[in-house]
Amino acid sequence: MGTESAKVAILMGSGKDADKMEPAREVLDGLGIASEVHVMSAHRTPDTVAAFAAAARENGYAAIICGAGKAAHLAGAVAAHTTLPVIGVPIAAGSLGGLDALLATVQMPTGIPVATVAVDGAANAAYLAAAMISVTDDGVAAALEKYRESLRS
Amino acid sequence: MGTESAKVAILMGSGKDADKMEPAREVLDGLGIASEVHVMSAHRTPDTVAAFAAAARENGYAAIICGAGKAAHLAGAVAAHTTLPVIGVPIAAGSLGGLDALLATVQMPTGIPVATVAVDGAANAAYLAAAMISVTDDGVAAALEKYRESLRS
Amino acid sequence: MGTESAKVAILMGSGKDADKMEPAREVLDGLGIASEVHVMSAHRTPDTVAAFAAAARENGYAAIICGAGKAAHLAGAVAAHTTLPVIGVPIAAGSLGGLDALLATVQMPTGIPVATVAVDGAANAAYLAAAMISVTDDGVAAALEKYRESLRS
Amino acid sequence: MGTESAKVAILMGSGKDADKMEPAREVLDGLGIASEVHVMSAHRTPDTVAAFAAAARENGYAAIICGAGKAAHLAGAVAAHTTLPVIGVPIAAGSLGGLDALLATVQMPTGIPVATVAVDGAANAAYLAAAMISVTDDGVAAALEKYRESLRS
Amino acid sequence: MGTESAKVAILMGSGKDADKMEPAREVLDGLGIASEVHVMSAHRTPDTVAAFAAAARENGYAAIICGAGKAAHLAGAVAAHTTLPVIGVPIAAGSLGGLDALLATVQMPTGIPVATVAVDGAANAAYLAAAMISVTDDGVAAALEKYRESLRS
Amino acid sequence: MGTESAKVAILMGSGKDADKMEPAREVLDGLGIASEVHVMSAHRTPDTVAAFAAAARENGYAAIICGAGKAAHLAGAVAAHTTLPVIGVPIAAGSLGGLDALLATVQMPTGIPVATVAVDGAANAAYLAAAMISVTDDGVAAALEKYRESLRS
Amino acid sequence: MGTESAKVAILMGSGKDADKMEPAREVLDGLGIASEVHVMSAHRTPDTVAAFAAAARENGYAAIICGAGKAAHLAGAVAAHTTLPVIGVPIAAGSLGGLDALLATVQMPTGIPVATVAVDGAANAAYLAAAMISVTDDGVAAALEKYRESLRS
Amino acid sequence: MGTESAKVAILMGSGKDADKMEPAREVLDGLGIASEVHVMSAHRTPDTVAAFAAAARENGYAAIICGAGKAAHLAGAVAAHTTLPVIGVPIAAGSLGGLDALLATVQMPTGIPVATVAVDGAANAAYLAAAMISVTDDGVAAALEKYRESLRS
Repeated sequence: MGTESAKVAILMGSGKDADKMEPAREVLDGLGIASEVHVMSAHRTPDTVAAFAAAARENGYAAIICGAGKAAHLAGAVAAHTTLPVIGVPIAAGSLGGLDALLATVQMPTGIPVATVAVDGAANAAYLAAAMISVTDDGVAAALEKYRESLRS
Repeated sequence: MGTESAKVAILMGSGKDADKMEPAREVLDGLGIASEVHVMSAHRTPDTVAAFAAAARENGYAAIICGAGKAAHLAGAVAAHTTLPVIGVPIAAGSLGGLDALLATVQMPTGIPVATVAVDGAANAAYLAAAMISVTDDGVAAALEKYRESLRS
Repeated sequence: MGTESAKVAILMGSGKDADKMEPAREVLDGLGIASEVHVMSAHRTPDTVAAFAAAARENGYAAIICGAGKAAHLAGAVAAHTTLPVIGVPIAAGSLGGLDALLATVQMPTGIPVATVAVDGAANAAYLAAAMISVTDDGVAAALEKYRESLRS
Repeated sequence: MGTESAKVAILMGSGKDADKMEPAREVLDGLGIASEVHVMSAHRTPDTVAAFAAAARENGYAAIICGAGKAAHLAGAVAAHTTLPVIGVPIAAGSLGGLDALLATVQMPTGIPVATVAVDGAANAAYLAAAMISVTDDGVAAALEKYRESLRS
Repeated sequence: MGTESAKVAILMGSGKDADKMEPAREVLDGLGIASEVHVMSAHRTPDTVAAFAAAARENGYAAIICGAGKAAHLAGAVAAHTTLPVIGVPIAAGSLGGLDALLATVQMPTGIPVATVAVDGAANAAYLAAAMISVTDDGVAAALEKYRESLRS
Repeated sequence: MGTESAKVAILMGSGKDADKMEPAREVLDGLGIASEVHVMSAHRTPDTVAAFAAAARENGYAAIICGAGKAAHLAGAVAAHTTLPVIGVPIAAGSLGGLDALLATVQMPTGIPVATVAVDGAANAAYLAAAMISVTDDGVAAALEKYRESLRS
Repeated sequence: MGTESAKVAILMGSGKDADKMEPAREVLDGLGIASEVHVMSAHRTPDTVAAFAAAARENGYAAIICGAGKAAHLAGAVAAHTTLPVIGVPIAAGSLGGLDALLATVQMPTGIPVATVAVDGAANAAYLAAAMISVTDDGVAAALEKYRESLRS
Repeated sequence: MGTESAKVAILMGSGKDADKMEPAREVLDGLGIASEVHVMSAHRTPDTVAAFAAAARENGYAAIICGAGKAAHLAGAVAAHTTLPVIGVPIAAGSLGGLDALLATVQMPTGIPVATVAVDGAANAAYLAAAMISVTDDGVAAALEKYRESLRS
């Protein structure tokens, strides 16, 4: 499977989260991984979320990154409708510093995991998606290793 | 509108929550309000939740009580599919004392409110549902006043 | 019962909270629900609060929204004097990010519930009041559905 | 003013708090200070609380100790109706370890203070009341000094 | 005992806390209660603190207000050396919002109480000191009642 | 690539964590995914951890699950030495309910992600590893779907 | 300087902490470092604490370990009276899981540090004291290395 | 052993932490203790960290100060490779106020202690290193005493 076929979805609960989620797109782009960005909300547009998640595997996504704040349900709502890997980015919004989003994202029940990264950690969500892809994609593996090397110098 | 026509749904994310949610049923029963109890999960059976919530108004529910623990999304998932009043009961499960469930339940985004009660506060969820019903139901209003009176003696 | 007869009280503990509570009034106004705004404090003017709450049912309120910060007692103090539905808005004031107001509002004892919304969630308090009213008021139900529809586009 | 005239009220929100509040009575007794214990609730019996507090000064109380859990409003409700010193004992109840009661007790607004002691710190509430009384009561001052001396050996 | 003889000490751990403690002095002044302000630290000048506290009763103080931040030990250190009432003001300093100072001030061991007020609650520390003094000082009682009255209008 | 070739490492910081990590092995086993369990500590045996992680890709692991408590560094230490996907399981140990382990696991710096699951969520770590493998392994995808289906009945 | 001359003080705020502090003594004993255990309280016996700390350097202590719970001031009070290294062990007591003791111990002001270890981490306090001593004591350095080696096998 | 031979390493996980760690260097300089500052990361450059720590004793360091934010592993990673005293400075970065860094630094497992100071407490890390050195270095002891004296005036 070549790098060109890997594709990652980047979802966010609100257009206000775009600046905080942009690093995910940039990182994937830099690693040569295709991505699509969509705004959809577990609460305002739940049917859109359900439909997107349910069709994600056949639509060829390798991972779905979901950023949301406060009672951050987006990643969980996606995970409820797919068995693809779902990555949650808790976004610090409001006055509680993102602790609410972190707990709402990470504390998922047995059977429906969300791979949670740091509060406001959109870039790492992308690196994590790349790590997943790298297991069967030597090009991405090489790109990741090269990036890691760059961190050391 | 008489007491007999008011009906409240009591949903819980897992059968393990039954003991903690039972007080809701008992309180409603004591106030002469009909209730139905269902186990359904925002994560394991999201379509069931969506369908139940979407049909709740035409099925005659006056309020929907939702109890869930950890990344407690049930109330939010229900609220996403109905404009009826949704009452969330954060359940203390796991090691964080219910703070996770409280924040995941209460910190909802604008437009999709969840009326949150105390951690493990199923009884109060029922009293809150009764308070809502009491606005247009003199029988329930009288039953609530009588209960309040009993607290004073 | 028509939309014109529904009336919601918006109380706040301090005039300093006016900006944070204004969205409640605006939302109700947009939904065609009458509201009244009052400043009264559970601690500075407790008798005013008690009198207002005790008379609220006969004065025709369908719900009482209460916004307060820090050791936020206003909603609880109102709930102690009425069996109408009381909605609490924890306001982030001081240095603890509203966690104090959230816990002081939501952790009510059995029998005296407060329907708590998100920290600084005045708009949702109004949507919640509207949801309650919508159960027996088709006009408000339609207005809520229309609003929800607007969130999806 | 002699020791015999000092009198302290010990209030608690629920009879379930009796064991945790008993040390307050015992400490006052040991220091020769009269006390009265009452169960009254800011939420279930708010008028009783208001009346008790409003009459406390003319009834000769030197301080009012209030123990309550969760959304602990009792001390604040008492303080709202008296300018006597009010001492709050946050009681650990439920699953949040008393952090809820602590914040609900201590974070009072300007003008209506509550002298808050440690979670489950009923004994210290009594020592604090005694310290207040000791300023103008040499007998209590001597009793406190003797007690302090006993801690050192 | 007349108003003129009541005297309250206002201590703070650092000169940087002066702005946050100034309201205590102003409130006492407004109530006709004499006060003295001193900067002394439980950690930098512990002997000064011990000596001040040990002599406070014979020097005629009716209460000692202590403001400190972070690992706020000042009130506890004073309380360790006197049986007079000690009032602690946790000051929000650093990045933890004053939760550190609150817990370090309020969670005192049995026998050595600190009357803790809200984070950054210096004004309330003064009102609390006045409440203590008011028990045996009719002038201060009247001044407090007058102030309370002003809050209601 | 067939199910038989997928292999997941399960690491834990201490043998005391074995009971809490056992569900990971069981879940993988039930899904037909090979796993190996090792006890190694980021602090007691850091070189073992570094060597294991550095060789993990060439040794054919598709994901590395790491369970640790308190200042839970194991997942981060592994992630520092590999670009494979690393899944962290915060374990509740000691008196802070696992909040320490959660924050120490999830708040990783840019470039070195850890896919964090719930506190004590070893089973979900396995389901997450399976989700990753399922992207290119139809057998695992089918096994996951079958499991999901079982949750719905 | 030989192992025999190194001496560490182990202080605890209350005899109730003895079981939690015993590992400190055992670890030092196992490493061949002399220790003395004393019960003294920053609040009940502050003068004893001050005197002990002030004389500690001339009495030949290389480090002072202090264990205390809740508003844990012991380590800070000792550090206020000596420039020797002071090690604080926050002890989990009461209902807040030791978070109170941790913050009260670690958040010291500039100039008066306390070397804080984990909640209930008495053993590590001893290993830390040994690490300090090991810098100029080859015997202790060797004993520590031998212990570390034992952790690896 | 003279002051000139004492040498302290100051490590930080990121160049962005330089301003917050600079006080450590300044304090050591003011006390006449040599220091070296290095940027190295437990996650980006783990081998550099391991090598530095493993060689630190033979390179003559008396203590190693480590500042890091979020999932702050640097101090723990250093401590894993040396038996020298390691001092951790949790740095407030991101939205959680440094609570994440504090818990990740202080909650170390038995056998591998980190001497943790306050959040953003780099200056105190230096005073703590000096306190350790002062046990066998009269010049540093005198410098510390002089500094302490300066705090009192």
